Amino acid sequence: MTLTSGHLLGLEHVEPEEIRLMLNTAESFREVSERDIRKVPVLRGKTIVNFFAEPSTRTRVSFELAEKRLSADTVSISTAGSSAVKGETLRDAARNLQAMHIDMIVIRHKASGAAHFLTQHLDVPVINAGDGCHEHPTQGLLDLLSLRDHFGSLDGLRVAVVGDIAHSRVARSLIWGLTKMGAQVSVSAPATLIPLGVEALPVRVCDRLDDAISGVDVVYVLRLQFERQGEGLVPSRREYRRLFGIDGARLRQAKKDVVIMHPGPINRGLELAPDVADGPNSIILNQVTNGVAVRMAVVYLLSGRDGKGGLDTHERQSH
Amino acid sequence: MTLTSGHLLGLEHVEPEEIRLMLNTAESFREVSERDIRKVPVLRGKTIVNFFAEPSTRTRVSFELAEKRLSADTVSISTAGSSAVKGETLRDAARNLQAMHIDMIVIRHKASGAAHFLTQHLDVPVINAGDGCHEHPTQGLLDLLSLRDHFGSLDGLRVAVVGDIAHSRVARSLIWGLTKMGAQVSVSAPATLIPLGVEALPVRVCDRLDDAISGVDVVYVLRLQFERQGEGLVPSRREYRRLFGIDGARLRQAKKDVVIMHPGPINRGLELAPDVADGPNSIILNQVTNGVAVRMAVVYLLSGRDGKGGLDTHERQSH
Amino acid sequence: MTLTSGHLLGLEHVEPEEIRLMLNTAESFREVSERDIRKVPVLRGKTIVNFFAEPSTRTRVSFELAEKRLSADTVSISTAGSSAVKGETLRDAARNLQAMHIDMIVIRHKASGAAHFLTQHLDVPVINAGDGCHEHPTQGLLDLLSLRDHFGSLDGLRVAVVGDIAHSRVARSLIWGLTKMGAQVSVSAPATLIPLGVEALPVRVCDRLDDAISGVDVVYVLRLQFERQGEGLVPSRREYRRLFGIDGARLRQAKKDVVIMHPGPINRGLELAPDVADGPNSIILNQVTNGVAVRMAVVYLLSGRDGKGGLDTHERQSH
Repeated sequence: MTLTSGHLLGLEHVEPEEIRLMLNTAESFREVSERDIRKVPVLRGKTIVNFFAEPSTRTRVSFELAEKRLSADTVSISTAGSSAVKGETLRDAARNLQAMHIDMIVIRHKASGAAHFLTQHLDVPVINAGDGCHEHPTQGLLDLLSLRDHFGSLDGLRVAVVGDIAHSRVARSLIWGLTKMGAQVSVSAPATLIPLGVEALPVRVCDRLDDAISGVDVVYVLRLQFERQGEGLVPSRREYRRLFGIDGARLRQAKKDVVIMHPGPINRGLELAPDVADGPNSIILNQVTNGVAVRMAVVYLLSGRDGKGGLDTHERQSH
Repeated sequence: MTLTSGHLLGLEHVEPEEIRLMLNTAESFREVSERDIRKVPVLRGKTIVNFFAEPSTRTRVSFELAEKRLSADTVSISTAGSSAVKGETLRDAARNLQAMHIDMIVIRHKASGAAHFLTQHLDVPVINAGDGCHEHPTQGLLDLLSLRDHFGSLDGLRVAVVGDIAHSRVARSLIWGLTKMGAQVSVSAPATLIPLGVEALPVRVCDRLDDAISGVDVVYVLRLQFERQGEGLVPSRREYRRLFGIDGARLRQAKKDVVIMHPGPINRGLELAPDVADGPNSIILNQVTNGVAVRMAVVYLLSGRDGKGGLDTHERQSH
Repeated sequence: MTLTSGHLLGLEHVEPEEIRLMLNTAESFREVSERDIRKVPVLRGKTIVNFFAEPSTRTRVSFELAEKRLSADTVSISTAGSSAVKGETLRDAARNLQAMHIDMIVIRHKASGAAHFLTQHLDVPVINAGDGCHEHPTQGLLDLLSLRDHFGSLDGLRVAVVGDIAHSRVARSLIWGLTKMGAQVSVSAPATLIPLGVEALPVRVCDRLDDAISGVDVVYVLRLQFERQGEGLVPSRREYRRLFGIDGARLRQAKKDVVIMHPGPINRGLELAPDVADGPNSIILNQVTNGVAVRMAVVYLLSGRDGKGGLDTHERQSH
């Protein structure tokens, strides 16, 4: 079984069975990163282009490591120093890459729909690494995997997502992924950070943060994205922290063993207090570890390899 | 047989026989990029530095893919983040790279003659990836290969080159390459974009575009390089498009099966109409595909490997 | 034997025996870079992150080549395009990298102590590639190796270090390394470029340059780092050159066979005259060559491989 669309653009239109396939495949790849030789030869001689038209460290490095651990050759393009300064269209840039016989493209772009746009012009698999305020599906998958690791199952899980829902592609992928797998999601944020049309999302909106987090299994804290949204949508940092920041005092309103997540990078002391980020309830670094495994799985599955539960015996050998 | 100068700085001083060698070698490498495993082990353990002191995506990625498909190790240097900010001279930068035992350097630089300058200070092969307004020989070679693919031979071919001849290194390499292989070249552009001393180039200058393209086999459209030349040399974009833009209406003045080429990135709707760029007469994406093959060939030949018509049997195996 | 601290943060707290180990290991690696196939398979499947939060070409490329020649997979992060623009802390950035199961991190950072800071938060080996005005130990080691090559031994060597001692991490690593190995160091610079607390360094301070260089075996010329210090600390370039620039006339005050060194990049004609930089007394390019060998040695030793005098027979084979 492989992914039916041949691409990974978001989780909204992916079947639960496909999500399960990606998570299971990621699980079987996780041990590759824990080996002495962190490498399997499954994509040797394949070329993957990482096209990052917005700044990124974590996601780019995570994809690059995933690809190298599958033995693919990688080429990175960032806006600085690219033909973007020459005014080339995204379509031309992509068609040129395809003409060079690349095998896959990973794209981050400020425009919602950029990854989908590429699929209309390219014959190679496209992975969305974050498009505008739309989706960031590998982030959603790594979040799901981290929760499944912790709770054993996603079914029936209650999750509160706190913060800038309006501009967060992370939130969208997470919400679609969680609800498809049977979890229930509530969201809470200042009114300016709740998207118009939120009723189209399968979530319950809570005006008061305490209502959102009371009794939930998981509090997922979003990043205030000053670098993308400016500061206009939040009254003040102090006010935001007072009303929506997650700190130790706030957590006492939640279940004792509530799980804390954040997609990073954290604005420490703003949306999340350092002692909570680093405390026993946090699984933030598990998310990061799972990011590499999930990206290995998605790259592998989209490369057209068979994904029935993992690698075959031969491929599990390091080369 | 290898390339006699040991470098590739331009096509002006290369013998037709050498051009033929490079094109033939490129042809034999082309199928490597079409394989399932796009890689041959011929340059394993070699180190190639791609030194790009001007922004580039297409050319840098094309070289990088070519080198990786030959199994070389590649290191990329771009001006952003390099010692350029520390005021180091090009000569010192190059001598330092050589002291690190690199095997080859690919350089793009805003100064005409930069690649030639390097050959005076380095013992390793130098490939010019574009120097100022001088030459861009691998672009010229990929253009020649694309034309030879299409027409079978370059001898007697009639080619019109349209646009900013004055500042185009692409045009220079193309003109030298074509005429050496027996083709005839006419050029057409606003007077401000015809170089002083154009009579030293083996071309016919046509004031009117229609004169240039009438009866030719190929129209090669150059890019208006606003990012390098500013806008001062062209009356207005609208005027340029009206007088020198290639669109469907204009093409009706040309032969029905005239071939359209462009080095990219295209200013769509300015020098070239989208329906022509993407139409049946265009071989623009073939140019891009041939770029990787030509660069594999040049890197391979300059590495001192024997180039008599291609790889020997052993090397054609993937590793 | 391996390095006891498990990291390389500076030479101040490293034992002479460990310096000797690193130099000897570097010597045994030097021939790898001179081979036809410049590669040994000792770190295959290992992931090394080069985190450069300050501009660098030479050092970054040198590390990258060293790592690739050991067959490690490398990932580079520079400030441009990194999460630095998102305000992530260094600690979070580092912990995230570790969560991705990297094997080693090489860091350059403007803050003195940045590398040491990382060791408190990471379980993987950290190599300091330059931290603020503190240390740059692989530079110090390559300087020591170049001198040992030339003189056979470092014991009893007399070395003058000329220039911006106050802000030079190169000077600090050199001074600690040299004195540990039995050499004697004098320094000379304008008063504004001698650090407060210089008496804590094992050096003799000479107000007049001629006193410093008279009778020494080596003159080590530091770079005036305008990009880091601004120009405020030096009266004028002309004045600096007159009083502290090393040129042919000045060298006639020194021993005939005095050795000239410089860490690069050189401000030619300012701190060092071109004919001296390129003259027979200069071993500047030897320093660069040794840089790759020293970095191979340090990476290899910190990876936990046995370092008793070199590679074992199997590992010396290319793969």
